[in-house]
Amino acid sequence: MNTLMQQAFWSEILGTAMLLLLGAGVVANVILPRTKGNAGGWLLINFGWGLAVFAGVFVAFKSGAHINPAVTVGFLAADQPFAQITGPDGMVTATIEPTIGNAMWYILAQLIGAFIGAVLAWFAYKKHFDEEAEPGIKLAVFSTGPELRSYAWNFITELIATFVLVFVILCSGRTPHQLGPLWVAMLVVGIGASLGGPTGYAINPARDLGPRIAHAVLPIPGKGSSDWAYSWVPVLGPLVGGLLAGLAATVYVY
Amino acid sequence: MNTLMQQAFWSEILGTAMLLLLGAGVVANVILPRTKGNAGGWLLINFGWGLAVFAGVFVAFKSGAHINPAVTVGFLAADQPFAQITGPDGMVTATIEPTIGNAMWYILAQLIGAFIGAVLAWFAYKKHFDEEAEPGIKLAVFSTGPELRSYAWNFITELIATFVLVFVILCSGRTPHQLGPLWVAMLVVGIGASLGGPTGYAINPARDLGPRIAHAVLPIPGKGSSDWAYSWVPVLGPLVGGLLAGLAATVYVY
Amino acid sequence: MNTLMQQAFWSEILGTAMLLLLGAGVVANVILPRTKGNAGGWLLINFGWGLAVFAGVFVAFKSGAHINPAVTVGFLAADQPFAQITGPDGMVTATIEPTIGNAMWYILAQLIGAFIGAVLAWFAYKKHFDEEAEPGIKLAVFSTGPELRSYAWNFITELIATFVLVFVILCSGRTPHQLGPLWVAMLVVGIGASLGGPTGYAINPARDLGPRIAHAVLPIPGKGSSDWAYSWVPVLGPLVGGLLAGLAATVYVY
Amino acid sequence: MNTLMQQAFWSEILGTAMLLLLGAGVVANVILPRTKGNAGGWLLINFGWGLAVFAGVFVAFKSGAHINPAVTVGFLAADQPFAQITGPDGMVTATIEPTIGNAMWYILAQLIGAFIGAVLAWFAYKKHFDEEAEPGIKLAVFSTGPELRSYAWNFITELIATFVLVFVILCSGRTPHQLGPLWVAMLVVGIGASLGGPTGYAINPARDLGPRIAHAVLPIPGKGSSDWAYSWVPVLGPLVGGLLAGLAATVYVY
Repeated sequence: MNTLMQQAFWSEILGTAMLLLLGAGVVANVILPRTKGNAGGWLLINFGWGLAVFAGVFVAFKSGAHINPAVTVGFLAADQPFAQITGPDGMVTATIEPTIGNAMWYILAQLIGAFIGAVLAWFAYKKHFDEEAEPGIKLAVFSTGPELRSYAWNFITELIATFVLVFVILCSGRTPHQLGPLWVAMLVVGIGASLGGPTGYAINPARDLGPRIAHAVLPIPGKGSSDWAYSWVPVLGPLVGGLLAGLAATVYVY
Repeated sequence: MNTLMQQAFWSEILGTAMLLLLGAGVVANVILPRTKGNAGGWLLINFGWGLAVFAGVFVAFKSGAHINPAVTVGFLAADQPFAQITGPDGMVTATIEPTIGNAMWYILAQLIGAFIGAVLAWFAYKKHFDEEAEPGIKLAVFSTGPELRSYAWNFITELIATFVLVFVILCSGRTPHQLGPLWVAMLVVGIGASLGGPTGYAINPARDLGPRIAHAVLPIPGKGSSDWAYSWVPVLGPLVGGLLAGLAATVYVY
Repeated sequence: MNTLMQQAFWSEILGTAMLLLLGAGVVANVILPRTKGNAGGWLLINFGWGLAVFAGVFVAFKSGAHINPAVTVGFLAADQPFAQITGPDGMVTATIEPTIGNAMWYILAQLIGAFIGAVLAWFAYKKHFDEEAEPGIKLAVFSTGPELRSYAWNFITELIATFVLVFVILCSGRTPHQLGPLWVAMLVVGIGASLGGPTGYAINPARDLGPRIAHAVLPIPGKGSSDWAYSWVPVLGPLVGGLLAGLAATVYVY
Repeated sequence: MNTLMQQAFWSEILGTAMLLLLGAGVVANVILPRTKGNAGGWLLINFGWGLAVFAGVFVAFKSGAHINPAVTVGFLAADQPFAQITGPDGMVTATIEPTIGNAMWYILAQLIGAFIGAVLAWFAYKKHFDEEAEPGIKLAVFSTGPELRSYAWNFITELIATFVLVFVILCSGRTPHQLGPLWVAMLVVGIGASLGGPTGYAINPARDLGPRIAHAVLPIPGKGSSDWAYSWVPVLGPLVGGLLAGLAATVYVY
């Protein structure tokens, strides 16, 4: 890795850690017992995750703020630069090219970051995890699970939701605005509100797999299964959705 | 159709499909059984629809992002260009003129897109549709229906709400901001919160008619009537509201 | 009235009508029976009113978008121009000066607009008004009322809340942003969330008095008292709050 | 104090007073009896506090709008200027340097402001305080308290949440946007949604200590203990979190 890619690697780790700390945090707040936000509702979860993206994108400013392998795969498929580093005058001084090698580093960093963020969220809600008796609730803070288990339909839902995420991201450069990271945060609020109902909208393989590994290895009292049988759905569904969105963008956008 | 209009045609199809996928999606999430967002409340629906507009406007960047026949009719009545295509330097390089012929293409594309989006939303929530026993709930994911049926008053409510949408859109160019599509998304959140109570705020003939056609033709298990008796209200109300807003803007704005 | 002031007069009428149509609308949606948003919660009302301001400010672009006598009084006390009209190049081409005479015209227009907006909201929710048996609920769509009646403390609450509104508006020019009317909309969401609990945050004499007059004169079936005994609180409290904010701004801001 | 620092001192007082007036206000609205927002939910509290920051930052435009000792400590640790005063042309005309002396003045002003804001919130909700019988509820309007008391874990939660706040603030300058104070408001909404569950997210020593002092000295009928045993957690946790964020930023950001 050259220096630029090293910085991007750290950037994706920190950004995805921020994403999971806040994202797993809001789920903990809503579903664990005796929290201030207990039973706070789906819109609270949607805003929590959307603003987790918001914070994560600010943190990951050195890498184009993918913080999601599906986004990385989408940029790769659309052959768009992963990041453009600008100098103080706003001119592009360096570019991270969309290569498979770079994508591998990005995705590795995202998985590491997601793992770390989930551990920090567990720390922040440690006493509330200890109060919870039901193992399934503990797992749900870390990783997604479907309300009605059907691997095929759950896969389709994750694919569609991630297609929306990545396709709109790839369209977004054509519409001027000065919202900074707020626009993608609001997009994620919207996807959660609209398409999160069946599976809990992983729409990000790292967001689901990193914390599931954390759940498997952490010494969480009274934890149960990490539900590996389902784990491929929120990985493959988003990857295929991001890939298709990248390919669609090559036809429609670029 | 020339190339510009062909691109606009596809743009309106894709943008309106995005609108309906997310818009019908949030209704499905709130009213279908065993979803994560079940009984999530009216504000969740308002944000879901507002952010559906947000995503749809980003997608429909080649056509001025009407994604609503009432907006197209309003621009036609106000004699304002449907879209201005800008080059990389921000200069206007081409204009789609407000002609009846262009309006027809726009509206056709919007209907096709709304149909497609509703089908995709059905796919995303397929298992939850199958769990629902009540035909009326299934229809409500696709199309609007009034809480108190009164064709005259329902028409007035849709007319007023759509007037607000189109008139504020036509006023908006006079106030500088850099919100991109977020401003119209928030306007739609507001209209839903404030004027959606009686009829569920179609405020868009394509949003209601396209999915109603989808409901009629799709092989949805246990579906009931598509309620064609009501179907003219969310088509004509918004069209008249958009027309009046366009005419009012010629007096007040331009 | 010169032409500029005539345009401002119409602008304040239309903007305040939009404010009340959407503002009274969201209250109707939450408190009237059999609406989609029935019992939708305080945050729904806060967003409804905040986005009512959002829409109203876009509409009232010819007058500086006061749409509130307390704002007009605050600008008068701070000796700040009511509106600066800019040409296509962004240069100021005309100014509406902060005189008592102009303030009178503004406030008259705001009262007329608020009256009209309340009538339109009544039309939009006509069938739901007819379903409601309780006269107090009908009045609450039009005008504010305290939860615990105490003219002195209610006055203080309205004064404090309006001071916040007008003082932050007068501070806001010192912080650059490109939010357009969204910033004041979010400020109003915040004031409602934080200071609306005791009295329902009139924070605007026209918002309360115009609809109260409408309530008194409209032929609303089964309506009761217009509660004139309380009506001076949401007029005088906001006026004094706006006045004090304007004076405070002369010390701190200008 | 020179003139610049005197202005900053007043700015921090007024900005933090605005923060607490609105912040304590939304808690009062949700937890005190017979308010309009009673039992309005956690998201209402999150938006109330986020928009309290929004208003406070507009008001504190003369001091860089810290309104939080943890932010001041973070800027000190990162050796970043507390404020840069710009002239009408946007050029920096003066800088408030990050010295320990200046930090002391900032923190003193923040404590004074937080005290004043809490008093004003008490005035705004005076009748509702009188209706409440439970002393713990009265205190909860002023200061935070944990749901599960564990000084060590509560400290860790406050430390993590404040690290997020200050680290993202220190990262934020690298990502262009034109959101003005809205971005930090949304960040605070997100931190509350995600990490506020265990302790109620003080994330600001002045926000907790100033109002606790107010609670101790004000003649509130039926008030109970000010819970001084817990009071060091929401002071030290945020200070350490802000310090660590400032140090981390020297490695990652600057």
